[in-house]
Amino acid sequence: MAWTVRSTQDVTYRVQQSESVFDPANDALASVAGLGRGSRRLVIVDRNVDRLYGEAIRAYFAAWTDTRPTFLVLEPDEAAKTSDALLLITRAAVRAGINRRSDPIVAIGGGVVTDLAGLAASLYRRGTPFVRIPTTLIGLVDASVGAKTAINFDGHKNRLGTYFPAAHTLLDRTLLTTLPARHIRNGLAEIIKMAVMKDAALFSLVEDEADALVTRRFDTPHAPEIIERSVTGMLEELEPNLWEHELKRLVDFGHTFSPVIEMHAAPELLHGEAVSIDMAFSCALAHENGLLGHEETLRVLRLLHRTGLPIRHAVCDLDLLRRGLDDATGHRDGHQHVPLPTGIGEATFVEDITTEDLKRAMAFLDAYAPATGGRTPALERDASAALETVAP
Amino acid sequence: MAWTVRSTQDVTYRVQQSESVFDPANDALASVAGLGRGSRRLVIVDRNVDRLYGEAIRAYFAAWTDTRPTFLVLEPDEAAKTSDALLLITRAAVRAGINRRSDPIVAIGGGVVTDLAGLAASLYRRGTPFVRIPTTLIGLVDASVGAKTAINFDGHKNRLGTYFPAAHTLLDRTLLTTLPARHIRNGLAEIIKMAVMKDAALFSLVEDEADALVTRRFDTPHAPEIIERSVTGMLEELEPNLWEHELKRLVDFGHTFSPVIEMHAAPELLHGEAVSIDMAFSCALAHENGLLGHEETLRVLRLLHRTGLPIRHAVCDLDLLRRGLDDATGHRDGHQHVPLPTGIGEATFVEDITTEDLKRAMAFLDAYAPATGGRTPALERDASAALETVAP
Repeated sequence: MAWTVRSTQDVTYRVQQSESVFDPANDALASVAGLGRGSRRLVIVDRNVDRLYGEAIRAYFAAWTDTRPTFLVLEPDEAAKTSDALLLITRAAVRAGINRRSDPIVAIGGGVVTDLAGLAASLYRRGTPFVRIPTTLIGLVDASVGAKTAINFDGHKNRLGTYFPAAHTLLDRTLLTTLPARHIRNGLAEIIKMAVMKDAALFSLVEDEADALVTRRFDTPHAPEIIERSVTGMLEELEPNLWEHELKRLVDFGHTFSPVIEMHAAPELLHGEAVSIDMAFSCALAHENGLLGHEETLRVLRLLHRTGLPIRHAVCDLDLLRRGLDDATGHRDGHQHVPLPTGIGEATFVEDITTEDLKRAMAFLDAYAPATGGRTPALERDASAALETVAP
Repeated sequence: MAWTVRSTQDVTYRVQQSESVFDPANDALASVAGLGRGSRRLVIVDRNVDRLYGEAIRAYFAAWTDTRPTFLVLEPDEAAKTSDALLLITRAAVRAGINRRSDPIVAIGGGVVTDLAGLAASLYRRGTPFVRIPTTLIGLVDASVGAKTAINFDGHKNRLGTYFPAAHTLLDRTLLTTLPARHIRNGLAEIIKMAVMKDAALFSLVEDEADALVTRRFDTPHAPEIIERSVTGMLEELEPNLWEHELKRLVDFGHTFSPVIEMHAAPELLHGEAVSIDMAFSCALAHENGLLGHEETLRVLRLLHRTGLPIRHAVCDLDLLRRGLDDATGHRDGHQHVPLPTGIGEATFVEDITTEDLKRAMAFLDAYAPATGGRTPALERDASAALETVAP
């Protein structure tokens, strides 16, 4: 005898913009976290955020509930995205005595902390809802609008995780004012990713303000539209493919070689910096394979360079790039499925990249960006922004 | 601006009966595990199973693929269902270099090992398919037909986990012939659970053969029908509620007080033994609340007793039972939702159990079963089976 079981899970989640979310006069957080009399809540906060907003966050909760939440402060760096940190959160959930469906975990911080808290929430009693407030630009436009949760494991980035979106995500652009310039650039990498793959208008908007976005921390005329176009573009890609049954994903641009680059150069590179290096290399690959014109290739490299994002790194030898491609192929079930641009805002998937192709792309890039930091003369003429490739 | 993301996940999985699954002439396992040339596979085997069937399993793989699988042998007891064991599996998955969608993890063993392997599979690259061969009766009729994966955590049973059904499950009744009698009883507890809640005919079939099912290890005339009715009944409950959005679940009968009983008496009680103690207590509760008649209450207690399952345990004081109810209420999002029988094969949910009710149920049970092991005179007249309450 045999049985076939068929079941369907409907998932709905909300992402909304809100300003000054820790101002007690703003009821957005109280509403999505269901704060009220007797609310037991576990609140996970990133150490940087705790330093800057810890008092405001505590005052906010004190204003909206009579019950002191359990606060857990976590290290925000990639090296802390471990199974130990994961179990620290689940232990705090046990001790806080939160209910299974009605006591959401609140995660406030960068991608490391929201990814960790999301994985903990997905595992705790097989799923406890969570609420997310990204505090970095990369969180706002990428890590915190999707469904992926993760920890790094055994030397591999995000090797363990689940698909478990936050029930509610609040995007607060005003939190960016306290962000270091390097972290603005970090988020810009993911915005440029979406722009190159599918949104030429977004690319132009970022080109227009590449310097100001960094120096003025997204307090610019185009910033609201840049964030909205990025989030909208991202969600258009995610919504029909939330569980990644389709492994050909435009949002994987910049994410083929970057996982090994990021893990290998750790702790030097931020995620977006590794993505930038990957995008530059991927554009060179596209150019060398006749997919992307010379001028368009340089246009992408120039924009990355102008925002102060790195284009090369000393760890990127042929061996590591090959390993990155093989790892990605394993992750994409034996297919390369490498998204490459065919123009600004247009893309295709490539399945037959060879070691020879990697070599030629490296050579192309050598002509435009030296392997380690420093000035990149060939891109110089547009580079009015800070020229350091990785700077705090 | 606000975005609402709506997505739907369709999940399909298959459970099929097959006999002598490690006989190289039987292609069922090769087919569901996709064995062929160059197949890299990670095979998780329970230590008891490895001792009895390890050679046969290795010979089976050697017959169906030219590539030696990675075997990982795990301890089968509840105390080994830890985050450490989980990470041991995910590390083995990294080392085995399995692909994301096409290289299923194969789990062969009791519920501890299939729950662990299932959780590891659900986390590895955010979901790698797995194939399950339960080797115990409780696995065959319960742990291995549903979608739940889990580890114990911080003193709480199954506190962390996911919903992630095996793509394929093979049910092989012939594996039961090597099972200790105690583990047959362990599985009978879950069968009796389904029978009491919704299948009076199943209850009668088990009553008919209570002794033979244990002594002959399910090599009896009714055994095939008993297994099929149990699995069918279980899947009818699970299919429309795979992610437990509905927290009123008939299959939770015997699972309100048993988690704390099992963890508290650890390592003494098997899962089904704790479930049996919970069912006996729940029937007493139903009786004392006027839901279940006197004769029907005794009929359930007698059947549990005849199969050699325990009805009481020394750890079950009022305090622990109260804690069990409170814990279950937390798990059921603040509602008791306690399934109680209103007849053999009929049930209801109760929401207002008080400490007084627990006391009265304990007193009722005291009259029929002493608190610790030994003979239970009031149930004696039907008890032709072994009388020990917990025996190897």
